[in-house]
This record gives sequence, C-alpha cells and structure tokens, in this order.
Amino acid sequence: MGLVSFARGIPGPDLLPVDGFGEAARAAVERDGRTILNYGPPGGYGPLREWIAERHDVEPARVLVTNGSLQGFNFVMRRLLGEGGRAIVEAPSYDRTLLTLRGFGAEVEALPLLDDGLDVEALTESLERHGPPRVVYTIPTFQNPSGRTLSLESRRRVAGLVGEHELLVYEDDPYGGVRFEGEHLPTLFELAEGVGIIYSCSFSKTVAPGIRVGYAVLPEELVKPVEALATETYISPSIFVQGALYEFVASGGFDSALARVRDGLRDRRDAMIEALEEELPEGSTWSRPEGGYFLWVDFPSGVDSAALLDQATEAGVTFVKGADFFLGEGGEDSARLAFSFATVDEIREGVAKLGSLVRERLAVAA
Amino acid sequence: MGLVSFARGIPGPDLLPVDGFGEAARAAVERDGRTILNYGPPGGYGPLREWIAERHDVEPARVLVTNGSLQGFNFVMRRLLGEGGRAIVEAPSYDRTLLTLRGFGAEVEALPLLDDGLDVEALTESLERHGPPRVVYTIPTFQNPSGRTLSLESRRRVAGLVGEHELLVYEDDPYGGVRFEGEHLPTLFELAEGVGIIYSCSFSKTVAPGIRVGYAVLPEELVKPVEALATETYISPSIFVQGALYEFVASGGFDSALARVRDGLRDRRDAMIEALEEELPEGSTWSRPEGGYFLWVDFPSGVDSAALLDQATEAGVTFVKGADFFLGEGGEDSARLAFSFATVDEIREGVAKLGSLVRERLAVAA
Repeated sequence: MGLVSFARGIPGPDLLPVDGFGEAARAAVERDGRTILNYGPPGGYGPLREWIAERHDVEPARVLVTNGSLQGFNFVMRRLLGEGGRAIVEAPSYDRTLLTLRGFGAEVEALPLLDDGLDVEALTESLERHGPPRVVYTIPTFQNPSGRTLSLESRRRVAGLVGEHELLVYEDDPYGGVRFEGEHLPTLFELAEGVGIIYSCSFSKTVAPGIRVGYAVLPEELVKPVEALATETYISPSIFVQGALYEFVASGGFDSALARVRDGLRDRRDAMIEALEEELPEGSTWSRPEGGYFLWVDFPSGVDSAALLDQATEAGVTFVKGADFFLGEGGEDSARLAFSFATVDEIREGVAKLGSLVRERLAVAA
Repeated sequence: MGLVSFARGIPGPDLLPVDGFGEAARAAVERDGRTILNYGPPGGYGPLREWIAERHDVEPARVLVTNGSLQGFNFVMRRLLGEGGRAIVEAPSYDRTLLTLRGFGAEVEALPLLDDGLDVEALTESLERHGPPRVVYTIPTFQNPSGRTLSLESRRRVAGLVGEHELLVYEDDPYGGVRFEGEHLPTLFELAEGVGIIYSCSFSKTVAPGIRVGYAVLPEELVKPVEALATETYISPSIFVQGALYEFVASGGFDSALARVRDGLRDRRDAMIEALEEELPEGSTWSRPEGGYFLWVDFPSGVDSAALLDQATEAGVTFVKGADFFLGEGGEDSARLAFSFATVDEIREGVAKLGSLVRERLAVAA
C-alpha cells in the first residue's frame, strides 16, 4: 500500500473535468479573447458575475469573483477586522481562516459546534451578554472540519438573530453544492433575504480547485472598499480563467461536473463509513455527512490523535488531528478524515490501518 | 473621434495572443489536466518555474509565480515592511506600489530620477548618511511612469553599492523584455550575480495581462516566509493558468507574442513621438524610450497638468497627471502618456488635441 491521504481536502483526480475544461478555455478565447486576455474589473469578468448573480437573485455588482474564495475571505476580513475587533467562530472550524483571524489581531470567540451545527443557544447568550461582534464566521453546510450541517430550525433562528441584533454573518459555503443525498436546506443568505449575510462560495469543490475561482456576495456598502483592496492587490483577478469558467458553466459543464463530483464523493463516503463501522473499536463515533469532503471522528478518550497521527504517518496513512481546528483546547482525541482524495480501495485499506493502530493504543493504555 | 486613452498601461487588443493562447490552454489540460486542475504548490506550477529558472540561471525553488506580479510585490513588501521600516524609491515611480508602501506605514524616501534613471549619487549619499534601508524599489528599464532607463554605468554602480552596503534591491522589470530597439542592458540581478536583488517580472506585457501571471526570483531566505504568505492568501495560485502559459511558452508562443508586441508598440511610440514633435509648443520635452509602454512629457512651466487633464478628458483624451507618481511635490506640469493602447491614428488625433489645449492654456496664462 502506498501513502493514503485523508489529510487534504482535495478532490481525487478522477473528479476533475479534464475532458471539458480545456475545450471551454479554447472556446472562451475564440469568443471573447480580446476581453479575457486583457485587464478587467477588480470584481471579475462581467458574464460570470451575471451568471452567479442570477443564481443568488442579486445585482451583479454585489458579486466579487476572486482567485479562490480564500482570497475573498482575506479581503473581507481585512476590511472588517484590519483594525482589530471581535469575531465569533465555531469550534472546531477551518484552521486556515482561524489563523487569518488571529493574524489580524481579532478577539476570536469560539462557540461550540453541536451535531446539528453552531450552538444557537450559545450564540444568543453571547449576543445578549457582549452585543454583536464585527462578524460571525460560519460554515453551515458539510462543515470543515466536522462534516456537520446546521439544521433548518437552527438556520431560522440564526437568520432571526441577524435581524434582531443587526449581525453581520460570513456564510462560507464551498460544500453546500456538493450534497449527494437528503434534502437541500436553504442558506442563511436565502433565509435572511440577503441582508446581513456575506455569502461565499467556490468553484473549487464543484468544478476544479486548480482554476482558483471563488466568489463572495457582498452587502452593497462593502463593495467599493473590498474592490479597492482587490485593485491594490492584483489590479484584476485572472479574467482569462473566469472567461474559461463562464464558457464551461454556460455550456452545461457545471451540471455534469457536479454530477460526477457527487457520485464520486458518495462512493467514497460510503466506503469510509462502512470501513469505520468495521474497523474502529467500540466507543468511537463519527459524523455522517450527506455531502462535502470530510467527516469527523471522535476516538475513545485517551487515544490522543496527535500521537496516533505520528504512528499512522509512519504506517502510510495521514489525516489532520482534531486539535488543529481549535484555537484553544479541544479535539485531542479527534480527527478530520477527508474522503475526497483517496480511492475506495485506499479508503478501506487506510481505515483498516487506522483501526488497528487505535486498538493498539487502547490496549497499551489499558 | 471617440475617447482616446493615454491613461492606462494596457496593451491594445491587437497585441494579444487571441490566436494561440486558447489552444495552448486546451493542450495543457489534455497533457496534464489532473495536475493543473487541482491545487498545487504555493510557489506555482513546477514546469513553468523550471522554465523561468532556466532563463535566470537559478534554482526553481527560488522562483515564486503569482497571480500577477503586483501580488508578489505585496507578499514581499508585507514580509519586509509589514512592521514598518525605511524604503527607498524613485521619484517619480509607479503610483500603485508607492501607495502600497505607504499603506504598510513604511518611511518612504524618494530619490530623484534622472534622464538615465535613478540618481546614483543621491543613493550613495543616502546610504552613507542613513545606512541601508529595508529595501530599494526600482524599475530600471523603461520605467513606469517615465519610460526612462538606467544606464549601464549606473547599473554597475548600483550593483556595486549592493555588495558594499549589503543592500536589498527590488528590481521590478515588467517592461525589460519589451525592447524594440537599442542594445539590451544587463539587469541589476545579472550584474549582482543574483545576490541582494529580488528580480520581479511579469507575463502581462509580453503575453497577456488577463492571465495575471507574474513572478519574483527570491533570495533563498525569503522563499519560505513569502510562500507562507501565499498559502495563507490563496493556498496556491491558479495552476491551470500557469499550465496553459507553460504550454504556450514551451511551444514557441512566447517568441512570436513578443515579436508582435514589440512591433505594435514601436509603431505606436513612433507615432506618438512624431505627433509630439509636431503638436506640442516649444519648451515641452519628453522621454524617448526604446521600449515599454510609456513616455513622460514635461510641459512648459505653468501648464498645470491637473487642469489640463480636466480639459482634455472633456475633449475626449485622457492621461495620468505627473503628480500622481510623486508622494510629495513634483510632476505638476508633467504627464505620463501610455502609447500602448490607442491605435496609431488615435495617437495622432489625441496628441493633436492635447497640443492645442496646451497652447490655449499658455495663451491664457501669458
């Protein structure tokens, strides 16, 4: 067995549109080369912004298309927290954004994440006690790292809090489109009717990460200051890539890419859950996401996922240890397993290896 | 006559590789789609880094390929000046980089730019008086905004100062490849044998701005910290675009793109200089660049280029007023004229219009 990676949230090569994206790029240059090969607006290529805007029923001017959604997150947070201030996040949450918020010197308050997403009781209490923060950062659907999803009831309550406290919520939703079963849930952006929510999404999980195209739907008052940051940083994003992507999505490529990604990920998740059921010792629990890239495993207490990771890496299996997704304590016996990259066979082998290492560690501890 | 823009340094549409770049993108996906459609290294696509590294005779690991060279400038300067410090620049210099340096809170010392580039006497004196700054930012060849070029003699002296004072110089060289006549001059990077110089270049002026690909050759000790900033900001740059560009340059597209750009720009520069000679009143002077995008006009004293710009804009001709390229005083009677975008006919008409407005202003002032 070679190295099996459950570490990085990247798609397996079989999930990429190698059959269609190159041709879309060629056609885009043929159709509109004089525009897409030159500088463009800081907010991105017009036709793509319009396509996105229509899906969210907003004015195209509110759509900022960036070189990957993380770039947009950085612009927005620099604007909101560049001078400091308080931000609320989930614990656990995406490690990269946590580090960025901390890098800005923000006061980061981490609220618990329950099986059905952000703890809305805790959020309500924090708002009542401390007033609204500059921003609440949440990944409501197939969360990174936990794979958990905010319930419809909780979504309604969060949307209610937005209105009540004039909250600003950053809804990071790269995985929402990658649902492979269960009922579609409305986004916070939809429930709040576009007010008080910055909605961020990406084409990395639905088309291809290597094109680095993501977007944010901004409140009107943030459009100009955030576009000014984009201009300062790179004049315009890659208009060529956005032209190619527009060609791809407008000619029907989006739906077929999404179907392939969903099918491929469903098979992988099924294989992983089946293997976890077979291989992990009693007392282990895990999330059962209906979409996305990740699931979260809580090993029996005392397993110590940092030590487990060292052993597993040596044995040829990697993952990210739970503690990496907490700013303070937490996740010491947990792990994020990405099922997006490895093949079904590798998933079976990798989880079997993990299972035997966990059993060994428990036997030694007993 | 429609609007004639001498304002933005962007290529005319006839200078773009609309006939070849799309096909290169298609071929790149066919050849290496599974790599270029996925995330990649923060420093960029391996084969492109190798191609660039070979041209500069350095290790590929020192080549950081970014979404446009301005993005790389931002990373490097955040690293060097994020906590403040002193930077030396030319006066005039590129307005966007000046604003960025000032945005970091750097203490910016502007040294005069002579007809043959940076005033090396003034640099020597500053170094002797204040010691080396964190960084010297210079555009030695076909400078933005002046079109001026640092002489060979001055290049040698700057390279000497680098060794003597352990200087760090950021050599911004997007235009150096776009020489359409005269002798090629060695870069500072070449003269200093790669030590003490960060060499930055771009494919915006030679292939196409819309792909947003630029690069910096970094000193070894800056590679890791600057790559960490890249990872934080966007995980990886657009690997797809870099794959397409590699395909384009490796299959001979670079040389033909460059030939087209050089020919097209030479014609435009010739038309502009001829028109300036015919249309501008006595007492006006201008630079005569052997390459690049811009030339610099000093109108007779008292013309006031800000007021001239208002009138010219109304009459359908735009440029950038000289004062925009100085942090302090300077450039009040000067203008940067980009000859890169307008057609030869538009250049003739636009300069004629400018000439008559300048004469009017002088007549009123007299």
